[in-house]
Amino acid sequence: MGWGTNEALIIEILAHRNAAQRKLIRETYAATYGEDLLKDLDKELSSDFERAVLLWTLDPSERDSFLANEATKKLTASNWVIMEIACTRSSYDLFKVRQAYHARYKKSLEEDVAYHTKGDFRKLLVPLVSAFRYEGDDLNMTLAKSEAKILHEKISDKAYSDEELIRILTTRSKTQLNATLNHYNNHFGNAVNKDLKTDPEDEYLKLLRATIKCLTCPEKYFEKVLRLAINRLGTDEGALTRVVATRAEVDMHRIKEEYQRRNSVPLDRAVAGDTSGDYEKMLLALIGHGDA
Amino acid sequence: MGWGTNEALIIEILAHRNAAQRKLIRETYAATYGEDLLKDLDKELSSDFERAVLLWTLDPSERDSFLANEATKKLTASNWVIMEIACTRSSYDLFKVRQAYHARYKKSLEEDVAYHTKGDFRKLLVPLVSAFRYEGDDLNMTLAKSEAKILHEKISDKAYSDEELIRILTTRSKTQLNATLNHYNNHFGNAVNKDLKTDPEDEYLKLLRATIKCLTCPEKYFEKVLRLAINRLGTDEGALTRVVATRAEVDMHRIKEEYQRRNSVPLDRAVAGDTSGDYEKMLLALIGHGDA
Repeated sequence: MGWGTNEALIIEILAHRNAAQRKLIRETYAATYGEDLLKDLDKELSSDFERAVLLWTLDPSERDSFLANEATKKLTASNWVIMEIACTRSSYDLFKVRQAYHARYKKSLEEDVAYHTKGDFRKLLVPLVSAFRYEGDDLNMTLAKSEAKILHEKISDKAYSDEELIRILTTRSKTQLNATLNHYNNHFGNAVNKDLKTDPEDEYLKLLRATIKCLTCPEKYFEKVLRLAINRLGTDEGALTRVVATRAEVDMHRIKEEYQRRNSVPLDRAVAGDTSGDYEKMLLALIGHGDA
Repeated sequence: MGWGTNEALIIEILAHRNAAQRKLIRETYAATYGEDLLKDLDKELSSDFERAVLLWTLDPSERDSFLANEATKKLTASNWVIMEIACTRSSYDLFKVRQAYHARYKKSLEEDVAYHTKGDFRKLLVPLVSAFRYEGDDLNMTLAKSEAKILHEKISDKAYSDEELIRILTTRSKTQLNATLNHYNNHFGNAVNKDLKTDPEDEYLKLLRATIKCLTCPEKYFEKVLRLAINRLGTDEGALTRVVATRAEVDMHRIKEEYQRRNSVPLDRAVAGDTSGDYEKMLLALIGHGDA
């Protein structure tokens, strides 16, 4: 991309701009270089730094549609990324991702997800990405109790992809679902995610537990993704960049709190210890983005 | 509702107003009578005339969310109405129905549909109402051929609720689906709906055929609904009012053409022969709504 030696300037400029400002920058970039940033993303990126810069510079709904599309492709397939986008964005933001997906890929998000997944994964992921959940605080306790009972029956029967279980997780509002899972915990003695841990190696069960975590306490989910990305042998830069670029403007503050609590070390210090050069500087700038 | 003797005036005023003008009227109604028209709809309506007036006066997305909600309720349940709304509205209009559903019912459309349906009907209807289909003209002929083959295999096996068959019908764009069904017809010798007529009494198969009709030639679907509503012993006013009120501003002209062609009698004459009084006058005004 020929940015030459201006990395420090790029970090200085981009990392401290909000979404509206970055949109302007992107338009200027297109006018100056005659190329769209999104196009550059499609090319093989030469470095983690460039990927971080490009992801960050995109509009949130374009960024998510790009990540979701990548996650449906064979070589970069990831059920987790699809689930994460479907479950941690607001209902309307998820809809905007679906609109951006139409515009860019001339297809629908759910059509690609349905086409590229199968079995239990498809049964869970297609309704997740198609959902437009109600977001009010309205709560039906009778329903929460009866659906906690359904969840308990299905999980006791190890019917983890039962259509009733999937219906509840994929259509109920987060407020309603939270009440249902609290009742489950109070009434049946275990948190639902504990009862879903019968086989720790089962990939579908892992995704199901992560889904529940994303829907009820996203900052804990993101803390864990970061922890695993940093602590493993050879950093998982894909996950690290994704979480930092997508959460910097949303809930990074709570993720940092959660990270500190769980790891007894601040997130920025953990990231600094695991990355280097411009990539490190960019991530640290984004992690500190919301700070005054 | 105490409209007294002003029915002629109501017809005169309302039936000739477009959606924006009716919105104004509705606001005036609320200011004058201190009540929302939608609220009145929830009451037992005393006549077909009143229901026609109220349905027509609503904003299209409110009207559809009202009809869809009614269709998920026990006493007024209708898989057909749900399917019709999901398949004959544009992608964005269907999304607006989902937004209106949140606002009015404090729940999501798909959550009510999923909760109130089961078995094969649920498997088909939930993805239909959750879809945000791509609407461009882009077409993948290789895909059309391979998916026509999948449809043929599943239908030959009588696997009518197979997940692949449902995936294709519920996620592909109407343009893409049309190409797939054309290839099916050319390559396997029958229209898909002919092959789906193995048991003419099967309710799920009827709904499946209607779904395909709605997705590929809605005016033929609506012509048939009108024909059956008018020709049966005792008019089906529910279906008649619904189709007239929801299509008057959309494709009534094509539905009238189709009706004339199929029945050798103009739609307005058929309606006039089957209804009477203010109800008749209101329907005829709406059927002629688009005419100069």
